[in-house]
Amino acid sequence: MLTATAFAALNPAPPLDLRFPNYEPQTPLLPGNLSDSPNTFIDNALHGRIVPLDHLDPANVLGDASAPARAWQAAAWRNERVHAQFVVWSSVEITQLRLAASPLRAPNGAEIPASALNARFVRYVWASFARPRLHIPGRAVADILDTATELDLPASGFRPIWLTVNVPENTPPGVYRGALTVTGQGRRSVQFPLSLEVLPATLPAPNRWAFFLDLWQHPWAAARYHNVTPFSPEHYALLEPLYRELANAGQKVITTTITDRPWNQQTFDAYGSMVKRTRHANGSWSFDYTLFDTYVAFAQRCGLGPQIHCYTMVPWGNRFQYNDSATGDSVVAELKAGTPEYEAYWAPFLADFQKHLAEKGLLEQTHIALDERSPEELRASVAVLKKHAPCLKIAMAGNKSPSAYAGVTIDNYSNVISHVEDNNAAFFSEIAPRRAAGAVTTFYVCTTPTRPNTFTNSPGAESVWLGFYAAAHHFDGLLRWAYAHWPREPLWDSSFRPDTWPPGDTFLVYPGPRSSVRWELLRDGIEEFEKIRLLRQAAAAPVLTELEAALAAFTYNKAIKQTDNELAETVARARAAVESATRATNFCPSE
Amino acid sequence: MLTATAFAALNPAPPLDLRFPNYEPQTPLLPGNLSDSPNTFIDNALHGRIVPLDHLDPANVLGDASAPARAWQAAAWRNERVHAQFVVWSSVEITQLRLAASPLRAPNGAEIPASALNARFVRYVWASFARPRLHIPGRAVADILDTATELDLPASGFRPIWLTVNVPENTPPGVYRGALTVTGQGRRSVQFPLSLEVLPATLPAPNRWAFFLDLWQHPWAAARYHNVTPFSPEHYALLEPLYRELANAGQKVITTTITDRPWNQQTFDAYGSMVKRTRHANGSWSFDYTLFDTYVAFAQRCGLGPQIHCYTMVPWGNRFQYNDSATGDSVVAELKAGTPEYEAYWAPFLADFQKHLAEKGLLEQTHIALDERSPEELRASVAVLKKHAPCLKIAMAGNKSPSAYAGVTIDNYSNVISHVEDNNAAFFSEIAPRRAAGAVTTFYVCTTPTRPNTFTNSPGAESVWLGFYAAAHHFDGLLRWAYAHWPREPLWDSSFRPDTWPPGDTFLVYPGPRSSVRWELLRDGIEEFEKIRLLRQAAAAPVLTELEAALAAFTYNKAIKQTDNELAETVARARAAVESATRATNFCPSE
Repeated sequence: MLTATAFAALNPAPPLDLRFPNYEPQTPLLPGNLSDSPNTFIDNALHGRIVPLDHLDPANVLGDASAPARAWQAAAWRNERVHAQFVVWSSVEITQLRLAASPLRAPNGAEIPASALNARFVRYVWASFARPRLHIPGRAVADILDTATELDLPASGFRPIWLTVNVPENTPPGVYRGALTVTGQGRRSVQFPLSLEVLPATLPAPNRWAFFLDLWQHPWAAARYHNVTPFSPEHYALLEPLYRELANAGQKVITTTITDRPWNQQTFDAYGSMVKRTRHANGSWSFDYTLFDTYVAFAQRCGLGPQIHCYTMVPWGNRFQYNDSATGDSVVAELKAGTPEYEAYWAPFLADFQKHLAEKGLLEQTHIALDERSPEELRASVAVLKKHAPCLKIAMAGNKSPSAYAGVTIDNYSNVISHVEDNNAAFFSEIAPRRAAGAVTTFYVCTTPTRPNTFTNSPGAESVWLGFYAAAHHFDGLLRWAYAHWPREPLWDSSFRPDTWPPGDTFLVYPGPRSSVRWELLRDGIEEFEKIRLLRQAAAAPVLTELEAALAAFTYNKAIKQTDNELAETVARARAAVESATRATNFCPSE
Repeated sequence: MLTATAFAALNPAPPLDLRFPNYEPQTPLLPGNLSDSPNTFIDNALHGRIVPLDHLDPANVLGDASAPARAWQAAAWRNERVHAQFVVWSSVEITQLRLAASPLRAPNGAEIPASALNARFVRYVWASFARPRLHIPGRAVADILDTATELDLPASGFRPIWLTVNVPENTPPGVYRGALTVTGQGRRSVQFPLSLEVLPATLPAPNRWAFFLDLWQHPWAAARYHNVTPFSPEHYALLEPLYRELANAGQKVITTTITDRPWNQQTFDAYGSMVKRTRHANGSWSFDYTLFDTYVAFAQRCGLGPQIHCYTMVPWGNRFQYNDSATGDSVVAELKAGTPEYEAYWAPFLADFQKHLAEKGLLEQTHIALDERSPEELRASVAVLKKHAPCLKIAMAGNKSPSAYAGVTIDNYSNVISHVEDNNAAFFSEIAPRRAAGAVTTFYVCTTPTRPNTFTNSPGAESVWLGFYAAAHHFDGLLRWAYAHWPREPLWDSSFRPDTWPPGDTFLVYPGPRSSVRWELLRDGIEEFEKIRLLRQAAAAPVLTELEAALAAFTYNKAIKQTDNELAETVARARAAVESATRATNFCPSE
């Protein structure tokens, strides 16, 4: 009988590499002065340390390199996603890096199971930004929280590792311990001790969050990226995990279209219309809502909503396409809001659409949405809207206070952050009365401002800052124009038209879907918003005073003048204030 | 009240183009001497004519241009897919070309509904072939049967249109008439009268076809092309329509892998293993069949099978990968069939695999498959196989008669067509005795021969020829190595490594899935095979004598010497003989 050991393995083993994606910018290397560093940098072992929740690069990766710490210690609410970041490095190449997180256990035997821990490699993506005045050179940024289960580490390379603990809602309060182990080929490994204190406070599930999150969706981008027919069964199968992750951050809006190219083409992919319009020889119209209805029902199944925003009555470019039933041709008309021709085009649709929405039970939550249109265009289009579909609501993103659009009630209004504090922040005083009247008020970041923002090259603290800012000024929430408006190859280069758009501006999550440092930290700030909301209901006055003091540091005018470190410290102090207030508060048991 | 006509359309309308894919090689133009042609080529109208079922190009597109005919007339069996091809052209640009096929109606009111007619634009794809001796320049070939519902026609361009009628099984025999209308922007249109005689004969559904079709599947190619994780739910959603179309051609084999890279890397994407192997510190092994089982069950649900072919015990390169549980590392061993080390590696797996297949009820149909290995490698690997898993069957593609592999019974054997007629076609005499013993015998085309074959630049008749060849020589069926082993961008360029592989060699259908001229004609030849099979059972002797005389023209040695026209005429004569035999035969009513 032959023994099973009777054959020789090739050594070293050339890997049969089937990993996907197999492209990545060259892994950045540790700073060049390592020959002067402690021997942890020049021996052949795998080393590691804990690092801040930020985009790692050669400048910030080693921190205090002489005293590398590996232990993670944190506190979290039940239902919170809590994160840690580590980095591993070696002076030699180490292939087949793999991650293994143990369950976390309390002394009394209670357990957070391994399935609640998610350890992911952070992969690099290009961030190119050629806008001349800003002089930001292209570089590889560690932003993608990847799905790869195995990666190679080149000699002197470093690889960040992102650990997420999804604290189960039923976890008894207490301290839970375990470890994350990173192992490379040839039994070289490094272990990170984990200690998580679960506090006696519970976040609601995301579908019960108050934070009004509005990240626009762009289904055509996923169809193009994945080479599938838009709205085919395969397309919906690809959209579903992407939308479920968005719902898991509390998204409150389904982005829909009622005209082709509402933004003309400001993204890699154009938007089509979810409603087809046909004009008949006798001048009458008919409208096909099949796609609109199917898409809305799908988005609702994924957990998005309740609001439905319809782009738009004033598209960028003022061009409107419809089908001429007499010829079968598609025809384009150019129509400006305020003209009789514009009303003639919109009136039949609006009356019919309102009727259709009422039949579907969707009327109450549906808004006609405008993006950055002038007060005149807003007034002219709303006049037509209110004449022919008076029950439809209005949503707009703009750069003034809502009161500046006199004569129009904007049911859902978002102000760009760089104008929020104009006129001694008079805008803030409009938020509470609007809420009392049932209107939603948010702020937004987009291609501007340079900071705080959620670009690939934004320091991580800026993403968290946005949630604290919303809490500090009692906003309903945040709008950002692009959840997954992917450029050509988002896993390779996060930039779209780098002479105009900052890198990563057009999306927050990567195909897969793969999460990102930016996405998790934006969501983290939303969790802090929710905690503050619950603390404001439950905490004693002196506790709240301290918390509000920490929040007072969040103004846009301060943030734009802060250094990276100062902004990160502002966020850290607010985090600490929330944790401290949590420890000082007795919450009623959740339902 | 405003009238709905109170706005002005832009004229000409710039289209808001959301079509996918939006790349295509430049549309070929009509031959340059059109100024001398009849006025149908120089006026501003849309013109059309019927053309043969072939890849259209400027050389064959106009046929007898002075007498363009538009009417299509054909006869078909129930359950047959019957095809027509038309071409439209104009001397001026015509945008928004659209297709509309009417139902086909018999005088007595019976109808073939419009849903049974499928009119598709044929799109162009690059076919590059740089193999020096053959001197075939790269050119755009009209091969893709596209999913686009609208395309533009450039001035002097031509656009082929492919019409498929899926004759419903319950259609009463008779003559059915209707029309295909092609319309462009501005009411310019051309109509093609259709006349289809439905014969009183019925093809069985493809799952009951006898033709043994074996086109290898490559799931990793679709995962890479669509940017999804292999074997994720999204991946299976994308594979399903691709595999269902393959099942609709009667595919009899599920292609699986039991080792990484069975062909090393002879395609754009490598194959992985569907079975994971782990070697433990004590020298024992364990095997994870989760992916294998899931994939086989999925392929069966799509209608593939019943056979399962497992590649392979003799991979190209002789490298085998497994996991070492002591270190967690992947390790590669190089092992040659015939060595003790090879047996030590295979023995534990084979015994375990046979047991697993028996438990799953899959043992009877499962084959260990080898591709073009030497008689020595075959014998050495089969010796190990029969010792440790005697119930597993054997499949191989080779270049000799099965009897040349003395001592080994190859349960499913395919001979490359260029060697089928060696030694006065002695091989043919082995087919019937093998079938009587339960063994399957097919022939195959691959990268060779140059003709007949199914390349992008192969004349269409060659694809049909293959089915007639199988019928003529009583083969069980046909093997081809690549159903959808897509190169980087198959919709743009059908070539993979054009210095070695002829264009389109690695796939027959395009992403979407989109059918192709080649695919439909290959399937068409399989339908002719099935008709001949049923005629041989039902037709009277003199009828059969004529039919067999037409089939006698199908030999490889003749085909390689024929001109394109001669080969096409051979196929046309055989088609006519089948139709004539059908008319002369009374079939028993089908179940």
